[in-house]
Amino acid sequence: MKRVLSGIQPTGAIHIGNYLGAIKQWVEIGEQLGKDALFCIVDYHALTNPDAYDPKRLPQRTFEAALANIAAGLDPEKITLFVQSHVPEHTELSWIFTTQTPVGDLTRMTQYKDKSAKLKSVPAGLLMYPVLQAADILIYKADTVPVGEDQLQHLELTREIARRFNHTFGDTFPEPKALLNPKAPRVPGIDGAAKMSKSVGNTIELLEEPASIWEKLRTAPTDPARVRRNDPGDPDRCLIFKYHTYFSPPEVQEAVAGGCRTAGIGCVDCKKMLFDRMMEVLGPIQERAAELRRHPEAVEAALEDGAGRARALAQETMHEVRVKIGLYKPY
Amino acid sequence: MKRVLSGIQPTGAIHIGNYLGAIKQWVEIGEQLGKDALFCIVDYHALTNPDAYDPKRLPQRTFEAALANIAAGLDPEKITLFVQSHVPEHTELSWIFTTQTPVGDLTRMTQYKDKSAKLKSVPAGLLMYPVLQAADILIYKADTVPVGEDQLQHLELTREIARRFNHTFGDTFPEPKALLNPKAPRVPGIDGAAKMSKSVGNTIELLEEPASIWEKLRTAPTDPARVRRNDPGDPDRCLIFKYHTYFSPPEVQEAVAGGCRTAGIGCVDCKKMLFDRMMEVLGPIQERAAELRRHPEAVEAALEDGAGRARALAQETMHEVRVKIGLYKPY
Ligand code: SF4
Ligand code: SF4
Repeated sequence: MKRVLSGIQPTGAIHIGNYLGAIKQWVEIGEQLGKDALFCIVDYHALTNPDAYDPKRLPQRTFEAALANIAAGLDPEKITLFVQSHVPEHTELSWIFTTQTPVGDLTRMTQYKDKSAKLKSVPAGLLMYPVLQAADILIYKADTVPVGEDQLQHLELTREIARRFNHTFGDTFPEPKALLNPKAPRVPGIDGAAKMSKSVGNTIELLEEPASIWEKLRTAPTDPARVRRNDPGDPDRCLIFKYHTYFSPPEVQEAVAGGCRTAGIGCVDCKKMLFDRMMEVLGPIQERAAELRRHPEAVEAALEDGAGRARALAQETMHEVRVKIGLYKPY
Repeated sequence: MKRVLSGIQPTGAIHIGNYLGAIKQWVEIGEQLGKDALFCIVDYHALTNPDAYDPKRLPQRTFEAALANIAAGLDPEKITLFVQSHVPEHTELSWIFTTQTPVGDLTRMTQYKDKSAKLKSVPAGLLMYPVLQAADILIYKADTVPVGEDQLQHLELTREIARRFNHTFGDTFPEPKALLNPKAPRVPGIDGAAKMSKSVGNTIELLEEPASIWEKLRTAPTDPARVRRNDPGDPDRCLIFKYHTYFSPPEVQEAVAGGCRTAGIGCVDCKKMLFDRMMEVLGPIQERAAELRRHPEAVEAALEDGAGRARALAQETMHEVRVKIGLYKPY
């Protein structure tokens, strides 16, 4: 693992599922790789989502995505954090890949089939999405891409695009490998649903007001067997205990599990303990976020700085690509 | 007609059919509009043609396309002549249009259907071609596009893309009009086929050696009724007479027609007269081409100059577009 590219969608607030599933891993990667850890807020991709995309809100969402990720631990002075559209070379490389990629490779993508099946009119951006994604990755010659299972097919297409380009025009791109996160928990929603998800509306946001978080925890379902305070419960059937495993140290988890099984603690006590532990993690993130919000110019400067670094790398690759594909006198 | 965009394919030598059908019209447009006459050598588009595209030859072909068009009368000091890939903003706008254009609008294009039917593997570039074409035109807010009949459907798509963008993001682009060339002759091939065409190999090239041109004329078919020198002929059934109508003044056309009908002139005489008239037009073009070939740096400087002008216009539009679609802090 020498260089990593990860894409961050600027679509709405980040929740603790995102944090535990992806951002914590990114922070570790950033500490390991420094500037070669590239985190890209993919606003060009956001345009392909006709439901979520709102031109009026996109600038603020892009800013918020940067702010939240910095607050959560991505250090823009050490890593490379930037906005996709600040490096328009992505779209240029994407066009070049478009000319070399069979339509059939794109129409058979599972995500395309699933998403397009739900739409009356399918924007071409949905079809071309994985080609731009390949450009995002390959323009930095990233060798590793942290992905979820649902992105493996797109990454395989990226590898195929790299292979085809190398075959046609000479060795240029590495074939990037997927970095799955074995530690990523599948965080359940606060309603007890199997997955926390913005579209379902069952999230706890990373930057949510503590009072609002407490209200969600307070009213969250617990083990249905604990009807009265004196009924013993089973932590393994309880959402709240699951959350304890993310935020509480082992000794607290043990105490909670024992207290639950013996009815030694009530659910409200248990939820208060969780809330305290959760805020030990979220509190410092929210403080950093508040501090950054008082200094938006610091976030802006960080993004400009990141764009400068990313663009220098991208332009180097594009120069090489332009020569290889035979563009005239590439500047 | 305030601003015109015309695309020039960098695929091989220009023939007299191109010259009579398009370039002469462009020269007139250039004289009328000056810098607002934009002529773009579309090398990004050339990549979508898996048959004609050769990375090793593309730089030279791009240079030759510039040289031939300048020699034929496009004055790069007056008009704006540039290479598409020198203004990478085209691909950026193309991506943005891609996110707003239904796949169905692209798959129903006649050219796409015709070309893809002949291919085993259809590159996505063939499907996305008219979207990049729309970006080529709209990024300069051109109001007029000189096209052949076969391009009318693509131009209608450009108009549709402009309308849709204006509707979604606010008034931004004019809906460009087609400029058909009523004076454009349908130049037959030197083999007598209805159309001169590079792929058929029946062309007379604009910069072809005079000896080679003469050889082609000398062996070209004439009215088959004139078997012997004394047989009268019918100029309306003769390719050579057709060419006379392009290159010879009315009095010569009359003399030739009369001489042919009365067997007063032989076919070789007639062809020599055509050759002389043809070289009166092609000679000065070929001299300018030879002069430019001795000074390739002048062609290069002209293209760099044109790219600078085009890019300034393109960046102005892109700034407006980026703000309207909600990209973050567009630089
Ligand atoms: S005590 Fe805690 S773990 Fe047990 S049911 Fe109540 S909330 Fe769940
Ligand atoms: S004289 Fe000229 S016009 Fe008549 S048949 Fe011969 S070449 Fe054709």
